[in-house]
Amino acid sequence: AVAKPAIAQSNPEIRWRLTSGFPKSLDTIYGAADFFAKYVSEATDGKFVVQPFAAGEIVGTFQAADAVQSGTVEMAHTASYYYVGKDPTFAAGAALPFTLNARQQNAWMYHGGGVDLVNEFMAKHGIHALPGGNTGTQMGGWFRKEIKSVQDLQGLKMRIAGVAGQVMAKMGVIPQQVAGGDIYPSLERGTIDAAEWIGPYDDEKLGFQKVAPYYYYPGWWEGGLTLHFYFNKAKWEELPKNYKAIAEAACMAANLDMLAKYDARNPSALRRLVGAGAQLRPFPQDVMEASYKATNEVYDEISSKNADFKKALDSIRAFRNEEYLWFQVGEYSFDTFMIRARSRG
Amino acid sequence: AVAKPAIAQSNPEIRWRLTSGFPKSLDTIYGAADFFAKYVSEATDGKFVVQPFAAGEIVGTFQAADAVQSGTVEMAHTASYYYVGKDPTFAAGAALPFTLNARQQNAWMYHGGGVDLVNEFMAKHGIHALPGGNTGTQMGGWFRKEIKSVQDLQGLKMRIAGVAGQVMAKMGVIPQQVAGGDIYPSLERGTIDAAEWIGPYDDEKLGFQKVAPYYYYPGWWEGGLTLHFYFNKAKWEELPKNYKAIAEAACMAANLDMLAKYDARNPSALRRLVGAGAQLRPFPQDVMEASYKATNEVYDEISSKNADFKKALDSIRAFRNEEYLWFQVGEYSFDTFMIRARSRG
Repeated sequence: AVAKPAIAQSNPEIRWRLTSGFPKSLDTIYGAADFFAKYVSEATDGKFVVQPFAAGEIVGTFQAADAVQSGTVEMAHTASYYYVGKDPTFAAGAALPFTLNARQQNAWMYHGGGVDLVNEFMAKHGIHALPGGNTGTQMGGWFRKEIKSVQDLQGLKMRIAGVAGQVMAKMGVIPQQVAGGDIYPSLERGTIDAAEWIGPYDDEKLGFQKVAPYYYYPGWWEGGLTLHFYFNKAKWEELPKNYKAIAEAACMAANLDMLAKYDARNPSALRRLVGAGAQLRPFPQDVMEASYKATNEVYDEISSKNADFKKALDSIRAFRNEEYLWFQVGEYSFDTFMIRARSRG
Repeated sequence: AVAKPAIAQSNPEIRWRLTSGFPKSLDTIYGAADFFAKYVSEATDGKFVVQPFAAGEIVGTFQAADAVQSGTVEMAHTASYYYVGKDPTFAAGAALPFTLNARQQNAWMYHGGGVDLVNEFMAKHGIHALPGGNTGTQMGGWFRKEIKSVQDLQGLKMRIAGVAGQVMAKMGVIPQQVAGGDIYPSLERGTIDAAEWIGPYDDEKLGFQKVAPYYYYPGWWEGGLTLHFYFNKAKWEELPKNYKAIAEAACMAANLDMLAKYDARNPSALRRLVGAGAQLRPFPQDVMEASYKATNEVYDEISSKNADFKKALDSIRAFRNEEYLWFQVGEYSFDTFMIRARSRG
């Protein structure tokens, strides 16, 4: 008889490493890794310890999926759309343009088949993935010049990636890949004309209003970005059942906590940004309409070549159409009244 | 030396009972108790077991707070506004009219001081309370006759309780206390003219559209009802640190899961209700305005007599005003576009 491996014990000592896709300066989004690690350690009396590392400390932001798959690290905390270069289906678990807001993402994930659908795909990459954060609807980014219509997008060099970058390209934008720390000097020198980042609380730290004051909304490509915890699939499956339950609950708690933190911190950051010179602007209606049309074209193109993407997109779109049937009733009319009541003072 | 009590062990065997404020037929809201119990048991390999009981099995819906305080049960899962008869401050942890939507409730609870503020008050009642579910914005309820203006509310007998009942009374409504199972026959016989319940998924089970077809929105008195898990305070404090961590994460996971479940199930229920004859109507603008005005009057009256209520309300109102500053930008404009795009087909 072969001895059972230590991991089959009920409360084995486990030490894992987690690579975050984010720097520690983004305390809200990076903080989910600390939050997860703290709960898992406390829940197991320090027996299951996950040590988080910032992006670049073990591997870079865009190497996290590979590092989990190969077992270099057991876990990552990341935005799945960073890996659209491998397969655009990765974006389906994170955010697809003009699809779901944050609550709808959670409804799709936990009660619309999303978690299973994402993991059916992730299994091909040796990853088990669980939602672990949401930013809410992001901002549309910072522009050096005002955008009055679609014409103003022609030839614009914008820091934007993934599926949204493909959509922007259809409208005449030249998408650029620029690392977070390089955005400010690129905007200042005029190497790029615009850049999308996250939302007020994170954007404020980088001071974009000084070099690209026009601050557009909404970020239609991220109605509610879901972050994920990635687990090396073999390592996940070896976990005792109680550790799996602890990890699952900690992921859900981290998911909820990140959105609550963003929602609590974004308002005062927005106020300060406007005070510091940010010119808040909605995207013109023709830009929204053209973006929506271009998005559907990109979806058709990718879907015709990629069955996994099509399957995920079809599920998300069908879910979205049902969700907005409901959200436009109670939620939207409540928010509408509250927004008007507030602006009357 | 005195021997340590068993509970000081790291993984003691604990058997607790939880009384839910809800019947099992409300599988979404009742389900949070099962969800919590399952995670806690799995996370501790069956050592910490919480057994949920439906309302009435041990004590009734409105006795849950007393049962937790006295130690008859160690836990409850309930809507805190059921106990406004003890003190209106209980409602502040659940839902106050014209305040926060579901995401804002979570932001206030976890990152706006809400959990601490609620527990400062709950400690006076021997309870430790953690958020454990949200319904989203509820519906405004079922009316036998169409409501075209505030005049149509005069003398209307409506099943509505708590602070919202006081507000309705200011507008000429006669608030009625009617248990869930008695609402349908009361509407059918005309003993009452209107009744608020929850939202499409739960309302559908009771078939109200057959006897009171006008289905109004939004339920301005519950922009995002937070349910709570109550713990007997002494029992909570005796828990080992790892069990506290497990319970806290399970409460947060249950909080997230309930809203996701409602959001996933409400749309198709709404579609079926409309197909079965429900007449969907927004409250007329003058009803919304009069309700808002009456709400602020009720708030002033309660605040002048109750310092705990005033403290909680002031915190929630200040938070609300900041939140809608932000929500009207990204979230609302994204939702607005998606709702319009959907209705164009």
